[in-house]
Amino acid sequence: MARWAPGASERLQRAAMQLFAEDGFEATTVAGIAGRAGVTERTFFRHFTDKREVLFAGEELLQQVFVEAIADAPAGESVAGPLVAALDAGGRALQEARGRDYARARNEIIMANEQLRERELLKLAKLAQAVTAALVARGVAHVSAGLAGELAVLVFRTAFDRWIAPGETRDLVALQREGFAAISDLTRAKT
Amino acid sequence: MARWAPGASERLQRAAMQLFAEDGFEATTVAGIAGRAGVTERTFFRHFTDKREVLFAGEELLQQVFVEAIADAPAGESVAGPLVAALDAGGRALQEARGRDYARARNEIIMANEQLRERELLKLAKLAQAVTAALVARGVAHVSAGLAGELAVLVFRTAFDRWIAPGETRDLVALQREGFAAISDLTRAKT
Repeated sequence: MARWAPGASERLQRAAMQLFAEDGFEATTVAGIAGRAGVTERTFFRHFTDKREVLFAGEELLQQVFVEAIADAPAGESVAGPLVAALDAGGRALQEARGRDYARARNEIIMANEQLRERELLKLAKLAQAVTAALVARGVAHVSAGLAGELAVLVFRTAFDRWIAPGETRDLVALQREGFAAISDLTRAKT
Repeated sequence: MARWAPGASERLQRAAMQLFAEDGFEATTVAGIAGRAGVTERTFFRHFTDKREVLFAGEELLQQVFVEAIADAPAGESVAGPLVAALDAGGRALQEARGRDYARARNEIIMANEQLRERELLKLAKLAQAVTAALVARGVAHVSAGLAGELAVLVFRTAFDRWIAPGETRDLVALQREGFAAISDLTRAKT
């Protein structure tokens, strides 16, 4: 996957992250972000709808990575194959595009603001729906596909939380694989 | 499990549900609820902190049912045993205490109000934590117990949504079992 948004867009994102961290999300203005990035407000609005969307710029790209991995997974009877492929691809993309330090800084900003927390939940709900739709397109039954979408988000979210925890050094992809395997184990009558 | 809140408390809940449905959650007042139930406002506040909490009166009881079922499950190596026992007990309790029509009416009120949707998410997050804590108390490793708590809520929530769907006649417990089995299947390499 290509790196997220080069040029002015990337400068704006960096400036926004700095200001959110320094002054808080609420006190930061679009004018302030544009000023710090050395561009006009008009340039800001060519790239983002508002300051909140700066934090969600990678959303559609991430969704796309999940969906494409499911579409590209080899044909077979199992749902686990495409599901793990999607998690691997999504985890890898997130890790490579922004890295753990960015994820930590972003998470701190999100968690401090109720409106942002809701927006983050909406992002995850959309990701679940996208995974479900991609599986339905492969012929997976609706109920299973729905559960698989929710499960993908559960595995992603819990692995992400571990990945950004202080002192954690393991890979996001490895943490997701561990989570997926743990769920597989704990849904079996005998482990 | 005993039926939820008899007497004045039950009358207040019934009155509140009627008014929420008739006038909307926001337009309903505590005075209006108390009046409809034929009690004083003071009586209302002996039973509930505010009008919102009327909709969450069964929360702790439901959590307790899950936790007790885990504690009472026979000793064994599997996590699936206590987890399914908790879901069965919780689903049964919910079904018997209030029933599907109440659940449908409540859900409609919750979904129409952002503040209530958040409160509902908090309730589910607390339920996940309670399940996790109950499993940790049985000696389940922290990561597995955390995932199991989230999984229990996923199964409960998705089965609940199916249970209250128009025209659905199946049991909540049966729908949960089906969801749990589907997740077990879709986390296996071969289904």
